[in-house]
Amino acid sequence: MFVSHETFLSCLSALPYASTQFQDFALARQKQLTKPAGSLGRLEEITVWLSGWQQQNQLTVEKIEGLLFAGNHGVVEENVSSFPSEVTAQMVANFERGGAAINVLTQKFGHKLRVFPIELERPTANFSQQPAMTIEETLDAINVGAKAVEESSADLLYFGEMGIGNTTSAAAISAVVFGGTGRDWAGPGTGLSVSGVQHKASVIDKALALHKDAVKTPFDVMRLFGGRELAAIMGAIVAARLRSIPVLLDGFVVTAAAAPLILHGGDTLDHCVSAHCSAEPGHQRLLDHLWMEPLLNMRMCLGEGSGAALAAELVKAAVATYNDMATFQEAAVATKNA
Amino acid sequence: MFVSHETFLSCLSALPYASTQFQDFALARQKQLTKPAGSLGRLEEITVWLSGWQQQNQLTVEKIEGLLFAGNHGVVEENVSSFPSEVTAQMVANFERGGAAINVLTQKFGHKLRVFPIELERPTANFSQQPAMTIEETLDAINVGAKAVEESSADLLYFGEMGIGNTTSAAAISAVVFGGTGRDWAGPGTGLSVSGVQHKASVIDKALALHKDAVKTPFDVMRLFGGRELAAIMGAIVAARLRSIPVLLDGFVVTAAAAPLILHGGDTLDHCVSAHCSAEPGHQRLLDHLWMEPLLNMRMCLGEGSGAALAAELVKAAVATYNDMATFQEAAVATKNA
Repeated sequence: MFVSHETFLSCLSALPYASTQFQDFALARQKQLTKPAGSLGRLEEITVWLSGWQQQNQLTVEKIEGLLFAGNHGVVEENVSSFPSEVTAQMVANFERGGAAINVLTQKFGHKLRVFPIELERPTANFSQQPAMTIEETLDAINVGAKAVEESSADLLYFGEMGIGNTTSAAAISAVVFGGTGRDWAGPGTGLSVSGVQHKASVIDKALALHKDAVKTPFDVMRLFGGRELAAIMGAIVAARLRSIPVLLDGFVVTAAAAPLILHGGDTLDHCVSAHCSAEPGHQRLLDHLWMEPLLNMRMCLGEGSGAALAAELVKAAVATYNDMATFQEAAVATKNA
Repeated sequence: MFVSHETFLSCLSALPYASTQFQDFALARQKQLTKPAGSLGRLEEITVWLSGWQQQNQLTVEKIEGLLFAGNHGVVEENVSSFPSEVTAQMVANFERGGAAINVLTQKFGHKLRVFPIELERPTANFSQQPAMTIEETLDAINVGAKAVEESSADLLYFGEMGIGNTTSAAAISAVVFGGTGRDWAGPGTGLSVSGVQHKASVIDKALALHKDAVKTPFDVMRLFGGRELAAIMGAIVAARLRSIPVLLDGFVVTAAAAPLILHGGDTLDHCVSAHCSAEPGHQRLLDHLWMEPLLNMRMCLGEGSGAALAAELVKAAVATYNDMATFQEAAVATKNA
């Protein structure tokens, strides 16, 4: 956990890095396994990425965990969502009873899931009128995420979110970090009409104008435009990096929650891989700006961490082939013609 | 199994179809589950596809099976592969000892795997000089695949292949079915150089010219340009359709083995979904011609059914969400604003 706003920012200057020695070891091992070099494509890339962070010759993804954060958004009063704010708490109840998509997926695939509703009865302020959160509120929410990661024993983490109105927050954050207007980043979210998306874009433009002179640290971007669940995810991503735990980034909202960290430095998200590209149109644009190539592109846009839960199975596959395939020498298989 | 060449072709005129009634049921159920309509994207599409074939209100993918066919190719004498023909048998031995990628993946994900080496000591003829197989040889190989499916109790099937030289066969088949030259369809396979790919294209062009006046039934295309493992896969795909078992199509070679069936009618592959797009450049072109959108695009090009093994996990995820998520009514979650 971060004791202050300043501690959070100073931690960003003290992040651990991936081991290039273990990455090289993984690259060399991949060439010895019984398959044409490179023929497992992105599965091979995943093992190089994991090796750099896990710093082990055998990789382990036995303890995969999803951390799901929920928050409510004052900007909903601007009529930017198809669903009412009450749905956030109703869906949290659904998560707690095990009836939502993320419950079913984590159950099916043997992932651990923990759910963190964050002050649902106290929505953030309407960020088109004033800052979404105070410094203290922002820090508290960041620490919900950081604490969740510090308590975790996972070897691979992903984060999910639930919060009616949070694609408006995600779009505004994306615009602040990478430029552009509301129109460039706003999408239908849970199902807005074309005119609904236009209105949402105009609300974002109003917010961008209101806060245009503000300082652009990752913390301040989150304080001005974020939500509690997005702040928690940003905190969780930094806490995971401090422990060198690899992270799968879910869809548009999670990626937008990560994006302000790039303002600190281009390698701040090196421990993260994009799990999937959401159907929410801003997500592909955001991934392009982050130079991230998603593992999956299934036209999903549910949130909850559902895309990352699927991608975790691809990581399991990558690790299994890396750890357990025979080498050319072990299997007495001829290598390529001279 | 098919008693003759004619029986095989006449079965293609007697295929069962998907139930639109069960597809409609699945579409309706998807709208009741606790998520915005359509937000599970392709997972929802998968459940509609499966519902049409399984014709059940609850879907089941508890018995997933991969059938892996291997064959050797006379066209290898034209120097079209980076690996020698002996590797086919060596890799079959590796499959039998459990050391290959497909072993590790099926083990990890709980799929059944059966391996069928087909007369490896007797390669097909060099199809740039003469037909690859006789009618009897083609029928025998088709029946290896058909029999394997008839013996299976799987609720979801995929097919894999191993055969040094078989991307040359796959490229030639693709050219015959959809037009174009060797250059349009030849790729590096297991790792040819640029000049190697050019040579491979010229071998394919020679074969296309040699057989240009031949009859174009699915059977004859396979007889002229195929390999035993490709013929087995074509037979397996038809046998699966006759039993209404849904199929995940693996990469370039498996998709090319399926492609001649389209000559019979555009709906002959309706029970198949493309599991992934291979890095082999002809595959995307082939999928475009078949109007198929792959579930995954991981730059893999190993064969063995490895891409389909991964995609089967996405099907499991689709089925789990469909069967087990709560409905809006069950969870007392509010639906969309009026």
